[in-house]
Amino acid sequence: MKSGLQNDRMLRALARQPVDRTPLWLMRQAGRYLPEYRETRARAGDFMTLCSTPELACEVTLQPLERYDLDAAIIFSDILTIPDAMGLGLSFVQGEGPVFAKPVRSASDIKRLAVPDPNGELGYVMNALRVTRAALDGRVPLIGFSGSPWTLATYMIEGRGGTDFRTAKGLLVDAPEAAHRLLGLLAQSVVSYLNAQVAAGAQVLMLFDTWGGILSTYHFREFSLRYMAAIVDGISREHEGHRVPIILFTKGGGGWLSEIAATGCDAVGLDWTVELAAARQQVGDKVALQGNLDPTLLLSSCEGIRTEVSRVLDSYGPGSGHVFNLGHGITPQVPPEHVSALIAAVRELSPAYHR
Amino acid sequence: MKSGLQNDRMLRALARQPVDRTPLWLMRQAGRYLPEYRETRARAGDFMTLCSTPELACEVTLQPLERYDLDAAIIFSDILTIPDAMGLGLSFVQGEGPVFAKPVRSASDIKRLAVPDPNGELGYVMNALRVTRAALDGRVPLIGFSGSPWTLATYMIEGRGGTDFRTAKGLLVDAPEAAHRLLGLLAQSVVSYLNAQVAAGAQVLMLFDTWGGILSTYHFREFSLRYMAAIVDGISREHEGHRVPIILFTKGGGGWLSEIAATGCDAVGLDWTVELAAARQQVGDKVALQGNLDPTLLLSSCEGIRTEVSRVLDSYGPGSGHVFNLGHGITPQVPPEHVSALIAAVRELSPAYHR
Repeated sequence: MKSGLQNDRMLRALARQPVDRTPLWLMRQAGRYLPEYRETRARAGDFMTLCSTPELACEVTLQPLERYDLDAAIIFSDILTIPDAMGLGLSFVQGEGPVFAKPVRSASDIKRLAVPDPNGELGYVMNALRVTRAALDGRVPLIGFSGSPWTLATYMIEGRGGTDFRTAKGLLVDAPEAAHRLLGLLAQSVVSYLNAQVAAGAQVLMLFDTWGGILSTYHFREFSLRYMAAIVDGISREHEGHRVPIILFTKGGGGWLSEIAATGCDAVGLDWTVELAAARQQVGDKVALQGNLDPTLLLSSCEGIRTEVSRVLDSYGPGSGHVFNLGHGITPQVPPEHVSALIAAVRELSPAYHR
Repeated sequence: MKSGLQNDRMLRALARQPVDRTPLWLMRQAGRYLPEYRETRARAGDFMTLCSTPELACEVTLQPLERYDLDAAIIFSDILTIPDAMGLGLSFVQGEGPVFAKPVRSASDIKRLAVPDPNGELGYVMNALRVTRAALDGRVPLIGFSGSPWTLATYMIEGRGGTDFRTAKGLLVDAPEAAHRLLGLLAQSVVSYLNAQVAAGAQVLMLFDTWGGILSTYHFREFSLRYMAAIVDGISREHEGHRVPIILFTKGGGGWLSEIAATGCDAVGLDWTVELAAARQQVGDKVALQGNLDPTLLLSSCEGIRTEVSRVLDSYGPGSGHVFNLGHGITPQVPPEHVSALIAAVRELSPAYHR
């Protein structure tokens, strides 16, 4: 078994090596749809306390694995830890999501920023990884992650989620040099952050480019993809004799799959608008693919979910190289038994593709 | 000149015939960013009065043409006229957008629906077209339009905009036959509506599939594309000796351009995430392309807008077959002088591509 894991299905699929069935984990699998998560979250008080207390982060990371037969754990954290560590004053406003007290708007704001110390301001994430890796005790691999530079930049510039991105897009058009300076600094920060995550126990890495898909192709290449490629180059991919695979996921990036795959990443995450069969044809000999059931369909009936799972598996087709996942994070309203139906369908239907 | 028009640049580009410069119009060019629109809108009282009073609809349709040098007019109307005519009780709630008093949720709700009479309940749209066509007096072509069946269905099922589409998507998964019945009825309604629009004076037709891009590829093909193809087949494309071109626009449909082009439409609309050069390579010998500047960039500086316009023109490259437009409608906050900058840039920079 890879890395001394009891279940190395995920690592094997990422390396496109034979597996007995398609491995499975779910974006935001530790989250509000689980009553046990809501209980721990209430106990923690606020969201950042939950993220920054290693024992609580470990507890919620493991909750979905207690309930379901999943092939990976993903460290419970937030994508905005880096800008928070840069001193932008992150808070979570009820019903509004993340808000930065000090958004970054000008070249001089950008000049004041520095790469945060992954073992200093961000040390709580490393502690959470160490505690969780020990608690997992080799059951399944532990995934570490970060937001992509562009995605972090959108929140830092806009100051909050839920906007039309006019300020962030305006910076690209009207002050491209300042934008490059910010994105370069963020790429450096992400490299140091992810390398530290590997040292602290992360066995797989994932980069969430949640907002790459709102850009024109030109802007995506210049301001998002270029910096993700720099991160893939900058990460130490070998750790304790094992390769650490990295997954890039640009939501809405279906038109750029070949270019994303060409960064040297190990796998590309797909949202549900992309057809796995077509994606595999484009990039399947270079990288593994992760995805891509529409999370909204988890609100349909259990029979409907099974049909849709079978469509996803059938679209990828026979052979290894597919990690089953959603095309975006689970939403809070999903009944936990619908997740059971999804997992049962993947378990029952996927072995036929691995004979 | 085609159809006796003083300016037939748009029709020539849609037919991929030589033009002196790239024709230009803007989605939602008659809208809230214009002070004269807001004045007429205030005078009308409510939004549906504005749509349903032919003289007022004509007035706002012509406003952007008085201010700017545009190559087409688009009849001022709403995409939800058909469901409104079906008796679903459309209203516009301040800050919330369209709301239906009687959303369609069950097979029995769907069975009660009938194709509306385009010269009955929808006669006000035909009157607006007749009045506007006369007022235009051949200056530029007049575009008629409809929402696509799937896009109309999302609003009818959800009952409002701004949702996560769980109910509409749930119907596709859990009651596909009912969904097909609804979409078939809507396709029939759109055919009869658009044919009547041509009889009333529309010289170009456009189908807005605003919500096609939220679907998986499988669901898009089954529940959106199939019905758009049926509409293209069903429309009488010749009128008074002239061909009536039809443009299909699926926002977020960049992954499906070849399939959209294969419906037999004359042009495909593109949002800003798609690269015109790549799209042209895929479909350029079959159809014209319309788009695709990110409307959010109209909030940048006038210099920035010019740079981005030149990128769009350069991406399409030399030759006819491109209708310049945005990748989605103009937003209310755009300063009208920024639209002037965009139009000036297209006028000045595009002739070089048509020598």
